[in-house]
Amino acid sequence: MKKHNFYAGPSILPQSAIDATINALKDFEGTGISLASVSHRSKEFDAVMDEAVALFKELLNIPEGYSVIFLGGGASMQFAMVPFNLMQKKAMYINTGTWASKAITEAKMFGDVLEIKGNDFFSIPKGWEVPEDMDYLHITTNNTIYGTEFHTDLDVNVPLVADMSSDIFSRKVDVSKYALIYGGAQKNLAPAGVTFVIVKDDILGKVDHKIPTMLNYLTHTDKNSMYNTPPVIPVFTALHTLRWIKEKGGVDGMYKMNREKADALYAEIDRNKLFKGTVATEDRSIMNVCFVMNDEYKDKEADFASFAASKFFIGIKGHRSVGGFRASLYNALPLESVNALVEAMKEFENLNS
Amino acid sequence: MKKHNFYAGPSILPQSAIDATINALKDFEGTGISLASVSHRSKEFDAVMDEAVALFKELLNIPEGYSVIFLGGGASMQFAMVPFNLMQKKAMYINTGTWASKAITEAKMFGDVLEIKGNDFFSIPKGWEVPEDMDYLHITTNNTIYGTEFHTDLDVNVPLVADMSSDIFSRKVDVSKYALIYGGAQKNLAPAGVTFVIVKDDILGKVDHKIPTMLNYLTHTDKNSMYNTPPVIPVFTALHTLRWIKEKGGVDGMYKMNREKADALYAEIDRNKLFKGTVATEDRSIMNVCFVMNDEYKDKEADFASFAASKFFIGIKGHRSVGGFRASLYNALPLESVNALVEAMKEFENLNS
Repeated sequence: MKKHNFYAGPSILPQSAIDATINALKDFEGTGISLASVSHRSKEFDAVMDEAVALFKELLNIPEGYSVIFLGGGASMQFAMVPFNLMQKKAMYINTGTWASKAITEAKMFGDVLEIKGNDFFSIPKGWEVPEDMDYLHITTNNTIYGTEFHTDLDVNVPLVADMSSDIFSRKVDVSKYALIYGGAQKNLAPAGVTFVIVKDDILGKVDHKIPTMLNYLTHTDKNSMYNTPPVIPVFTALHTLRWIKEKGGVDGMYKMNREKADALYAEIDRNKLFKGTVATEDRSIMNVCFVMNDEYKDKEADFASFAASKFFIGIKGHRSVGGFRASLYNALPLESVNALVEAMKEFENLNS
Repeated sequence: MKKHNFYAGPSILPQSAIDATINALKDFEGTGISLASVSHRSKEFDAVMDEAVALFKELLNIPEGYSVIFLGGGASMQFAMVPFNLMQKKAMYINTGTWASKAITEAKMFGDVLEIKGNDFFSIPKGWEVPEDMDYLHITTNNTIYGTEFHTDLDVNVPLVADMSSDIFSRKVDVSKYALIYGGAQKNLAPAGVTFVIVKDDILGKVDHKIPTMLNYLTHTDKNSMYNTPPVIPVFTALHTLRWIKEKGGVDGMYKMNREKADALYAEIDRNKLFKGTVATEDRSIMNVCFVMNDEYKDKEADFASFAASKFFIGIKGHRSVGGFRASLYNALPLESVNALVEAMKEFENLNS
């Protein structure tokens, strides 16, 4: 029976991108060589990198003056690379949960951090202002663990840096409002092992301290992500995911589908007397939907987990730091999987009434 | 017609490892989910990581007290991570070419570097001693670009650090003589995107300066390479390459085949009146065989390149910084490919006599 892949990441990818990767592992672009064994300096791989960068720019409507690069190391490495490259003295961070907290820990090694934090992580802090002397403001646009999300592009008076690991390509973004956007690609884009960075060229090269070569964004923007060997297979899969996004109507097409999926699931969570959402309504993520049992049904949590497993729902256990349930609705997750989950929640309610 | 893949890296891998990766991209371990879309926290991927580490230790006979970790970012990132973690004041580096030079550049950001360098890079510098106050000695055991190689494990009186990107698993190594061994895996082990580190646990945690979390080896040794999302596909392929190495007789089996391949090609280079080797005989690499046209046949270089291409030899152009030719004979390259190249060199000699 079909599995419904609700993993929070690595997570479901378009089947066409996986199929293209399988074919390329057999024979990459008619070279007679596997994608696993081809030089990154071959003209065939050069073409892959160039098209991936071009499609990235086209789909996000990235203005002139920005570079797109693909790196190894994961978004966690960016938590250090961002202050290494951009922090001269101090920066402001909005702490919206686990990932933002980790970014803050790294930033504190490089200078002073003004941290904005709410009473808990079930809503996005509001009502703050950015002092003008901040080198930048850092936000995590979507919080996979707590299920909150910034739904608009902020207007701020300092360079805006965003970790978009888990919502890139899920909606339209006004890139011109950001100085730097980064993310691990293993949610909406590629298998684990590649990180994307969109960076406004003119913010680089301005800090006084030395930066190790591989941690300097300029190293990679200067060489079109080919200073060292890039993660060839994940970049290839990313290209084919980008082609799929384009075929499906670009980021507007993605958003329409994502909105429909999220609305259907949140509606059921709000309707079903067994469950409740954990996040302030206006901050609910369209990528990671977190919910728990209502207080009077707390003892049914393990039962629902088993029931869901029997229906082949994979990866809906909430993160160990939050508990309950989490359904990740990334771009490639079909509406049918959400509908199946909604049906299962209704069925479970009937069984327990 | 069959291609002969002599790429310097990314390069030829065992077909069984590629086939296993293709199968796992279709369905990973019977989970009904693609390897591209499976959580690294799933028990099935945990088992992959555990077996890869265990086989790594078994095949290299790694003593107790060492950890094996898999990271993203490439060996170039290790050029900075090594001094970040191990350099308190000064270290000694043997400069054997491009990669060693890059490692030295990074090390100089962290302290003083005593650099040992020969007149050129066509032999390994000899006759040096290591001052006792060095934090460590760094060597690059095999030099892909110039085709030189350290053929023995050095005995030194300070911690020995080695970049073995391009000869790991090609021969037996006495790991007990090293404090740290690292390498990009995209030659003898895996597709591009994963880096291995073998580290003696008791050398870590001793420097005074702060280390960003992702650049601290302890972060990764403490979490069995799962602090952040590891490069799932390359780690999976690496596991299957390790299984193949074991089936083929382990590192002794690899060395026997590699010696045979290298001997056959060097013998032809020395015999054939059109060609000559570029490296001091005792320092010739068994992984990367560099050769040029003899002086009186210099004008035949482009002809031989075309001739080789017509015979489906891929990747035998020398690195742009050296010129001439380079045949990379990594573990997975079959003897038949070397024999075919030798035959082609003979045929070309006959055509030009």
